[in-house]
Amino acid sequence: MSGLDPADLTAKLVRCASVTPANDGALEVLEEVLTAAGFDCTRVDRGGICNLFARWGSKGNTKSFGFNGHTDVVPIGDEADWSMPPFGAEVKDGVMYGRGTTDMKSGVAAFVAAAVDFVKDTPPDGSIVLAITGDEEGDALDGTTALLDYMAEAGERMDVCLVGEPTCPEQMGDMIKIGRRGSMNAHFKVTGTQGHAAYPHRANNPLPAMMRLMDGLASHELDQGSDHFDPSTLAVVTVDTGNKATNVIPAQCRGAVNIRFNDHHSGASLSEWLRGEADKIAEAFGVQVDVDIKISGESFITPPGALSDLVSSAVEAETGVKPELSTTGGTSDARFVKAHCPVVEFGLVGQSMHQVDEHVRVEHIHQLKSIYARVLRDYFT
Amino acid sequence: MSGLDPADLTAKLVRCASVTPANDGALEVLEEVLTAAGFDCTRVDRGGICNLFARWGSKGNTKSFGFNGHTDVVPIGDEADWSMPPFGAEVKDGVMYGRGTTDMKSGVAAFVAAAVDFVKDTPPDGSIVLAITGDEEGDALDGTTALLDYMAEAGERMDVCLVGEPTCPEQMGDMIKIGRRGSMNAHFKVTGTQGHAAYPHRANNPLPAMMRLMDGLASHELDQGSDHFDPSTLAVVTVDTGNKATNVIPAQCRGAVNIRFNDHHSGASLSEWLRGEADKIAEAFGVQVDVDIKISGESFITPPGALSDLVSSAVEAETGVKPELSTTGGTSDARFVKAHCPVVEFGLVGQSMHQVDEHVRVEHIHQLKSIYARVLRDYFT
Ligand SMILES: [Zn+2]
Ligand SMILES: [Zn+2]
Repeated sequence: MSGLDPADLTAKLVRCASVTPANDGALEVLEEVLTAAGFDCTRVDRGGICNLFARWGSKGNTKSFGFNGHTDVVPIGDEADWSMPPFGAEVKDGVMYGRGTTDMKSGVAAFVAAAVDFVKDTPPDGSIVLAITGDEEGDALDGTTALLDYMAEAGERMDVCLVGEPTCPEQMGDMIKIGRRGSMNAHFKVTGTQGHAAYPHRANNPLPAMMRLMDGLASHELDQGSDHFDPSTLAVVTVDTGNKATNVIPAQCRGAVNIRFNDHHSGASLSEWLRGEADKIAEAFGVQVDVDIKISGESFITPPGALSDLVSSAVEAETGVKPELSTTGGTSDARFVKAHCPVVEFGLVGQSMHQVDEHVRVEHIHQLKSIYARVLRDYFT
Repeated sequence: MSGLDPADLTAKLVRCASVTPANDGALEVLEEVLTAAGFDCTRVDRGGICNLFARWGSKGNTKSFGFNGHTDVVPIGDEADWSMPPFGAEVKDGVMYGRGTTDMKSGVAAFVAAAVDFVKDTPPDGSIVLAITGDEEGDALDGTTALLDYMAEAGERMDVCLVGEPTCPEQMGDMIKIGRRGSMNAHFKVTGTQGHAAYPHRANNPLPAMMRLMDGLASHELDQGSDHFDPSTLAVVTVDTGNKATNVIPAQCRGAVNIRFNDHHSGASLSEWLRGEADKIAEAFGVQVDVDIKISGESFITPPGALSDLVSSAVEAETGVKPELSTTGGTSDARFVKAHCPVVEFGLVGQSMHQVDEHVRVEHIHQLKSIYARVLRDYFT
C-alpha cells in the first residue's frame, strides 16, 4: 500500500470526540490533508453544525464525482462499559477500536486517502467533490442539507455521488445500497363513551372499533414488492387503553402503526389510505377516530445502472465478492443527496456501529481505500 | 301508622357506624326489638363478622317466610364532602340523611317493624325467619353464607325469601328483582416474538392476533335474551401493550373482557368457548395465548310465580305502581339464598346508595313497612 495511509487518517479522526453536534477538530484534520493535495476547501457551518465542502478541479460543467460522509458520531454511553478508550483509536491484533471506527470515520478517511493519491498520481479530466457533514447522527437539519444548499447557491455540482456509510451486513463487499424504503408512523385515538360493563348498550366502547381498524390495517397487503424493493410492511406497534377496572367500559383507546413503504407508495398516498380506513371505522362504529401521521422519510432509489455497475465492479475486483444491490435498512443522508444526483452507498461491515467497543479491522480500511480508488479510476477513464 | 316506627328504628341503626366489617351495636338494636316481640335470636358470628338469625314461631315443617338483609354499610369517603353527619340520621324537610339510609338499614327496619307488628296483632300459623348479615358490602364470605350454613346445621328453614335491598330505579314500587345475570372476567395474554418494525417477517407480532381475537369476541352474539333475561353481553374492557418505541414490534399484549350472561350459559360453558377461540387464534397466528378466567357469579332466577305475584300485588296495592320483574343490576346476597329457596328482592329507590349524602324520604320507610306488612298478611292468609 502506497500513498496516504487511511488507517492513520482514521485514527486521527477517531481521536476527535466529535459526538453530534461537536466537531472537536475532525473537519480541520481533513481540511489540512485536502488543502495540501490541492483541494479548495470551504467550511459550510450552519446552526451550530460544522460541515466541510471540498473540490479538486474546476467548478462548473466538468465530469464530477461526489462523495458524502459524516465525521460526527453517536454518544459512547457509559465509558466504563468499553474495554478500550472510546476516542483512543488503539489497535490490538490488527483491529482498531473507538467510536466512529466503523460509522464512519474510516469511510471518510479511506475516500480522502484514495482521492488525494488519485489526483496526485493521475490528475483526472474533471473534478472530485467531497461533502462532509458533522450532523448525520443528529437531527440532520443543518448537515448534508446545508452542504447541498451551499452547492446550489455557489453553482457547485456532482454528477454522481457515493455515500461511504457502512453497508455490508456480513462480509466486506456483500452489499451496496441503491435506495431506501420510506418510513412513517400513524397514531390513532378512538373515542367512544364510557360506561358500566354491565350495560354496554348505554356506553359506546371504543375498543371493538380499534380492534377492527387495526386488524384491517395489519391484514391489508400493501403490495408484493417492486423491481428493487421488498414488499411494503405495516406493523401495529402498540394498542393501549390503561383501564384497570373490569366493570368499566373505557372512553378512549390509542394505537400506533409503523409503515415501511416502497416506491409503489408515498407518505401522502398512505396517509390518504389510513385516514380513509379510519373514517370507515368511525362511521361503522359511531366513534371518533383521530389520526396523527408523521412521515419520517419517503422512499427513494437510484435504479441499477451506470453508477451501481461502477461501484459493484470495483467491489468485486478488490474483494472477490459480488455485492447485492439492496434497498433495506435504516435512514441515511443519501435521502438528501438523491434530490441532487444519482447516489449509491458502499462502505464497511456495519456490525459494531453504535455499539460499545465499536471497531474495524485495519486491513479493511486499506481495502476500502483500494475500492474507492478503483471507483475513481474507472469513473474517469 | 301504628305500631313500631320503622323510621325511628332506621335512625337507631344509622347511628351505628357499621362500616364492613364493623357492627358497632347495629345487630344488638335489632336483637333487642325482636327478642321483646317473641323472636328467638341467635348470633351467628364467623370470621370476625357479626350476623343475626331470628325466628318467630316454631322451627321445622311449618309455613315459613324468610327475610334477608344487611346492616353493614360502605365507607363514607371524605366526611368533609357530606352536608349532613354521615352517622347522624338527621331529618330535614322529611328526608333522613346518613350512610345506610337507603342501602339498606331502612329496608331491615321496615321489615322488622312489619314483622313485630304482624306477630303481635295477628299471630300467623307458621314462622317468620330473619337472616341479617354484617358482611354484604365486603367479600361476603362470612355473611349470608354463614347464616345459611348455620340454618342447614340447625335444621332451620325458609320456604321463600324476600331480600330487602333497594331495587327501584326511579320511583317507589317500580321494580322487583327475580334474578341476576352471571358475571365473569377473562384476561388474555398474547405472546409473540419481539423485533424491529422494519423487518416484521423476522418478528412475530402479537398485536394482530389480539386484534382478531378481541374483534371476534366482541362481534359474537352470545344469545338474543331468554324468557326473563336481557341478551348476554361481552365488553372488551382493556387492551394494553405499553410499547413506547414505534420502531419496535412488541413481544406481548394483554387484553380483558367482561361478560354478563343469562341462563343460556354458565361460567363453565363460556370458559370453554373463550378458550376455544383463544386456541383458534393461537394456531392461526402462531402465537401463544394465555387465558385467565375469574367467574364472579353464575346467573340465577326465581321464575315469575307465586312469590313474585305475592310481592308484586302487595307493591301495587300500596303504591299504585305495577313493578317490573327484572334480572338487571349488580350482585346481591340473593345469589346465596337462591340455593336455599325461591327468592325475590324488593326495596327502596336506590339512587343515592353508596354516595355522599345518602338519604331516604321518611314517608318511603313507612310505605316500605306497609308493603312488607301486606306481603306477610297475604302470605299467611
Ligand atoms: Zn453513519
Ligand atoms: Zn345493599
